[in-house]
Amino acid sequence: MTTDAPPVEDGGPTDAMVADVFQRDCTSRHVLAAVTGRWGVLTVAGLRDGAVRFNALRRRIDGVSEKMLAQTLQALERDGIVVREVRATIPPHVEYSLTDLGRRVADRLADLIDVLEGAVGEVEASQRAYDARRDA
Amino acid sequence: MTTDAPPVEDGGPTDAMVADVFQRDCTSRHVLAAVTGRWGVLTVAGLRDGAVRFNALRRRIDGVSEKMLAQTLQALERDGIVVREVRATIPPHVEYSLTDLGRRVADRLADLIDVLEGAVGEVEASQRAYDARRDA
Repeated sequence: MTTDAPPVEDGGPTDAMVADVFQRDCTSRHVLAAVTGRWGVLTVAGLRDGAVRFNALRRRIDGVSEKMLAQTLQALERDGIVVREVRATIPPHVEYSLTDLGRRVADRLADLIDVLEGAVGEVEASQRAYDARRDA
Repeated sequence: MTTDAPPVEDGGPTDAMVADVFQRDCTSRHVLAAVTGRWGVLTVAGLRDGAVRFNALRRRIDGVSEKMLAQTLQALERDGIVVREVRATIPPHVEYSLTDLGRRVADRLADLIDVLEGAVGEVEASQRAYDARRDA
């Protein structure tokens, strides 16, 4: 849906019919960027096994800063992909998990990750061939 | 595979066993970033219907600059996702298409895009609820 379209109050079929990630103002393009951005994809994939506390998630995603992970989680919460819950333990702690939509997204990302993790040899061979052509 | 690992000459099962997108130096994480980056995901998805010329692809991906699309295509070619071919027409022209690996990646991205384009109403409702809580 573009920003020029009238506001829609529910997720009826009309939304799906007009949504197009190739249009710059479409909400679907915004949320695609959120779940596939530099840290978004690893955050969503990292929540696939169940609720996780912030620091555990941060340890799993090698290289993410506290600030970037916090911003990523907040954006995903706003888009309805992630739920943030405060557990009434002593001391209280905060857990993050996926919504139903988040799980559907995470399953698709897991399929993509399987393909890429299985293609590492193929990718590295292509990189070497490309670099050899460039250097020739 | 991490950069510390010995070079591997083919895409044997060993690669898949050690590949882990959560590790910052893994080739699979690099290529995941390439196919899910700001323009990478739309470029791969935009090539799914067959070979396309540069300008046609650029028109399809609303908002991409000539420079960013060229850089994105070059990175995807190096990773073995995209093939660049010069057609011996008069005048000659350049076409881009997906490799076999690229098609497998594009199919997974298409599944993801289907989920998100169908969830636009749900995402927008979540955004409104989030903003209302924040403003309360």
